Amino acid sequence: MAVICPRVRAMPEGWEIKEKPSLFGWVFLRAIPKRGMDMDYEQAVDQLINGAAKPPGSLGLLEKYLRKVLLAWGGLEREVRPHHLIFAADNGVVTEGVVNYPAEITYLQAQNMVDGRATISCFCSGSGIPYTVVDVGTKHQEAAGINRKVALGTKNFMQQEAMSPGEFRQAWETGREMVRSSVEQGYNLLSFGEMGIGNTTTSAAVLHALSGILPEFVVGYGASPGNEETLKRKRLVVAKGVERHRETMKTVEDILRCVGGFDIVAICAAMVECARVKTPFVIDGFITAVAYVCAARMQRETEKFAIPSHLSKEPGMAYALLLGNIRAEDVPIRADMALGEGTGAVLMVSILKNMVYAIFHTARLDDFELSAAVPPATAAV
Amino acid sequence: MAVICPRVRAMPEGWEIKEKPSLFGWVFLRAIPKRGMDMDYEQAVDQLINGAAKPPGSLGLLEKYLRKVLLAWGGLEREVRPHHLIFAADNGVVTEGVVNYPAEITYLQAQNMVDGRATISCFCSGSGIPYTVVDVGTKHQEAAGINRKVALGTKNFMQQEAMSPGEFRQAWETGREMVRSSVEQGYNLLSFGEMGIGNTTTSAAVLHALSGILPEFVVGYGASPGNEETLKRKRLVVAKGVERHRETMKTVEDILRCVGGFDIVAICAAMVECARVKTPFVIDGFITAVAYVCAARMQRETEKFAIPSHLSKEPGMAYALLLGNIRAEDVPIRADMALGEGTGAVLMVSILKNMVYAIFHTARLDDFELSAAVPPATAAV
Repeated sequence: MAVICPRVRAMPEGWEIKEKPSLFGWVFLRAIPKRGMDMDYEQAVDQLINGAAKPPGSLGLLEKYLRKVLLAWGGLEREVRPHHLIFAADNGVVTEGVVNYPAEITYLQAQNMVDGRATISCFCSGSGIPYTVVDVGTKHQEAAGINRKVALGTKNFMQQEAMSPGEFRQAWETGREMVRSSVEQGYNLLSFGEMGIGNTTTSAAVLHALSGILPEFVVGYGASPGNEETLKRKRLVVAKGVERHRETMKTVEDILRCVGGFDIVAICAAMVECARVKTPFVIDGFITAVAYVCAARMQRETEKFAIPSHLSKEPGMAYALLLGNIRAEDVPIRADMALGEGTGAVLMVSILKNMVYAIFHTARLDDFELSAAVPPATAAV
Repeated sequence: MAVICPRVRAMPEGWEIKEKPSLFGWVFLRAIPKRGMDMDYEQAVDQLINGAAKPPGSLGLLEKYLRKVLLAWGGLEREVRPHHLIFAADNGVVTEGVVNYPAEITYLQAQNMVDGRATISCFCSGSGIPYTVVDVGTKHQEAAGINRKVALGTKNFMQQEAMSPGEFRQAWETGREMVRSSVEQGYNLLSFGEMGIGNTTTSAAVLHALSGILPEFVVGYGASPGNEETLKRKRLVVAKGVERHRETMKTVEDILRCVGGFDIVAICAAMVECARVKTPFVIDGFITAVAYVCAARMQRETEKFAIPSHLSKEPGMAYALLLGNIRAEDVPIRADMALGEGTGAVLMVSILKNMVYAIFHTARLDDFELSAAVPPATAAV
């Protein structure tokens, strides 16, 4: 069975449509330069965007990220086929009193997501975005969503390394696997979310270890807004936890393994894999941003595929993005959200869906037949 | 024919479902307090929002605007039924060389919108948002969209009043009519866009006249980014134009009539009407924000129904919102867009659709059965 898309309106000269086979007998079409054409794809993308009937650059950041998506694909796909991946895992460090919620919320809320009863589920259903919950280590005998449990939560990094090298590899492989299977199913834009009580603490620890930025600047309230006692404790735990493993942590992998979480590891791996299979992805809030900076450190190429969505209230968010070469002012949504799950990411995915649809369906500047009677801006007023 | 919605999950105690008949035999359901109940609706809305299974306030601004929408309705409607209204009109002041595009673009692009070939059309189709283009005065014999032409563009306010009192009333009535008929058709959330070469100049003139803020602070590049010559001229035109009518302009209506445009008048009227029929609406960029501050000045109640979407690059945008009691930091989308059409507004409408859907479909905090085993944050680390 073949899906024949209508003619790509804005096909650059010298390009042709190629079939891109996928799983289940579906065929997607993408435009690529004709064999033997000396065509600069980046130039073609710029022509496509700048030729749309609107003042140049008038869609601001949205044009910037449309361009990034098209360049990431390396060929003009006609539509966004998004898939949202949520990784759920528990963190041993919660026993240190760094958060005002019990760990069992992780499993319960991940199950709510699966059941369509979490905010992210509603956002995804409402926007027509398929999503998958991956249980990479919640503290519960059963799995919420796809079962890829590495363990029933990491160990407490105040006492020992959060995970063993084997556990790290398992979480890492799960992230890669989810991206590979998404791409095989024909999805071409991924977004990431997470669920894990205690994971703003693990993220802050990873960021502190990675950058040396003081806990005061990277530790926020997380899910316990306004609780000064918890905040102080969290800062102390991040400082002491990282100090404890200082000698062991020589590489990004070491840092993730010693003070990170299964969710962060899986998301980091997924992002690195996205770069390998040339698939753009959307970052959500603080936790996914920390996974992103780790991915960018491990594989610089990842930066070309990363699209920010929402600037979270967590103070470390802007640092994490900046370390991955994304400036705070380039983040398009500012809604003071602090939910995780990928709520910000899927809102951005919807915007990108609209943008890709628009670039192939709006009129072209060439279509306008104008008398070009612009009054001169020179006569005296 | 009646549409029976499934049970409202989160119905407050003491409330009942009432049918709300609409045009075409459709029936919408809304929850209202039972007769004789001494129920505080605002409290009920807060209970509804705060009882959702997520950390309190974790959806930030999105919760704030969900609350505003529910309060505006005055009864818990179960879904957003959005309608996007785009008003197109030309402005006589373009003959002063304040913009680098010919006026005929207004009609052509408005027609593109009708034909589904403008960015806003693609955003609306992609997001399932019905839209209507209203030609309230493009400079063309034919109409683009619904024909409510007041004239073929306003007069040049550098030479005379932009419109006569009769023309003002006609544009005003069109705005009211569009809202009334939208509400009769069952729409419960409106958003506004505009198309009109020269309308950042008219908007800046209205804002300058209304607030006394100097042209340097309210005049931006509009659709001619980076053109310093045009910018200087535009400032001069705004200053001199407003000066010319200073004596005549005693009321907001006078200002709109002397230096405004048909699009701004119609949008302002539509917003005032929204307040009258208790329907929340979404502001887009600079032009709609100026229409909003006029509406808020004429009818203070309007503020309760206004939801911002995108902070435009135009320097007057933040002033216009602030005069209507909306702070820049309360604007959720920051994408440096400068297109108009309502592109920012419909993105926000999609977010609000998701939020209303989510509040009626997410799990409730009461559903969680927790052991409440939160580790104490007191022991020594």
